[in-house]
Amino acid sequence: MNEALERFSVNQMTVKQLSLPELADACQELGVRNVGLWREPVQRYGVEAAAELMRDAGLTVTTLCRGGFLTAIDPVERAEALGDNHAAIEEAAMLGTDTLVLVSGGLPFDSKDLHGARERIADALDILAPYAAERGVRLAIEPLHPMYASDRCVVSTLAQALDIAERFPADQVGVTVDTYHIWWDDGAPEQIARAGAGGRIHTFQLADWTTPLPEGVLNGRGQIGDGAIDMREWKGYVEAAGYTGAIEVELFNEALWARDGREVLAETAERFVAHVMQ
Amino acid sequence: MNEALERFSVNQMTVKQLSLPELADACQELGVRNVGLWREPVQRYGVEAAAELMRDAGLTVTTLCRGGFLTAIDPVERAEALGDNHAAIEEAAMLGTDTLVLVSGGLPFDSKDLHGARERIADALDILAPYAAERGVRLAIEPLHPMYASDRCVVSTLAQALDIAERFPADQVGVTVDTYHIWWDDGAPEQIARAGAGGRIHTFQLADWTTPLPEGVLNGRGQIGDGAIDMREWKGYVEAAGYTGAIEVELFNEALWARDGREVLAETAERFVAHVMQ
Repeated sequence: MNEALERFSVNQMTVKQLSLPELADACQELGVRNVGLWREPVQRYGVEAAAELMRDAGLTVTTLCRGGFLTAIDPVERAEALGDNHAAIEEAAMLGTDTLVLVSGGLPFDSKDLHGARERIADALDILAPYAAERGVRLAIEPLHPMYASDRCVVSTLAQALDIAERFPADQVGVTVDTYHIWWDDGAPEQIARAGAGGRIHTFQLADWTTPLPEGVLNGRGQIGDGAIDMREWKGYVEAAGYTGAIEVELFNEALWARDGREVLAETAERFVAHVMQ
Repeated sequence: MNEALERFSVNQMTVKQLSLPELADACQELGVRNVGLWREPVQRYGVEAAAELMRDAGLTVTTLCRGGFLTAIDPVERAEALGDNHAAIEEAAMLGTDTLVLVSGGLPFDSKDLHGARERIADALDILAPYAAERGVRLAIEPLHPMYASDRCVVSTLAQALDIAERFPADQVGVTVDTYHIWWDDGAPEQIARAGAGGRIHTFQLADWTTPLPEGVLNGRGQIGDGAIDMREWKGYVEAAGYTGAIEVELFNEALWARDGREVLAETAERFVAHVMQ
């Protein structure tokens, strides 16, 4: 067992070319003990079967990605979103993870009202947060980079995420701290301290910032060490705020997906040790 | 003369397919009285000749774009940048505009130090701001959208821009308020009030936010009315802060550049009236 990997968690999306059994096998081989999972591949494999596979491989499921998309105005769409989030909470509980990551959703068609969209997220959490708590699951609002504000997530900063989260008990709603989304924000360290003081850092994720950004800006998250972000600095902020949990590497990157998944996982673990732990 | 266009300024980049004489001619035909110019096409035409062309067409030059790129660590690069900014200030004075827009620059190669880069901008302004003031030119630090933080501009928010600007007299250094870069930021209205109270809103620019973003994320700024930004809301913020100057539409958009420039200018003026003034 490599102690430097004790807190490392590989988010499934980083090596999405691997099937769940391949992922479990590669983690065992490399001494990786934690994984973040995504709903779609878990559903395809079967939620109970995935939970059993992870348990048998000795893997802890650090997060499930993702719930959210709670900004619809249309009542039917809104009801569907709530139903889907109830399902996500149940899946998280079945997988034994305590954290469901929320990507809150963008602006509805033809709307220019960011404030109203953020309020609808809070309204939805009134329903979802107690439902999750009853099942031992915490919701982790993830501020996404402002370049996703219109089409993916109207919550763009940790401050905004905490403004919503703090309306609820900390063991029900907290935040996701992901370097990719907040690294540019000189107010983020202070907000990490605020989140930590309130017990609301529910997960800490890493990806590096590389340019040029690809069309659509979704799948250009850089391998750790390849970009502009000082990972030790951000690890320092969350640790100073009291965070001692897993550190999850979540990369969406076409070039990494085109490679052998085991090789990418090994490289990611090496980068984690070199750029985060040393 | 269309009174609704009195405060409209067309940034040259919006219709970069037009030559300077074509731009001057099209503005006269449409009743457009203000233009924002860019250094490269002005230099190609000749700065004095461009100034004369604008004067003869009765056009006010609202801004010159752009100075900046002040983050270099290397002493030779730094000296070159200062020299280039001295030239930009002189060109602004020759064109008769009172405002030079600054795009501050990204991270130097292999640097991850955003804070240090921001301090080097302030250091450079110690030299440039008095030089500009002697020539009747104000520097307008433009916060660029956080998606440009690594490769183009380490100043990502109005708060950061004002933190630098306020080290200098307001008639030397202020800010550019551009909807495209700040629309996602719920702290921006408060910062606009701060800027206005200090007399530091040196220009107000508009572009709309449309998705998907193109590769490299430079040339996807939406035509007014096509995107997620409520232009009247932002006009309201700057006016409440005391801004009464020109409102410049600056679009970088491959699809608009592929069209007839006069047609794009006419459409932009119509959109301005419909989405900003009415």
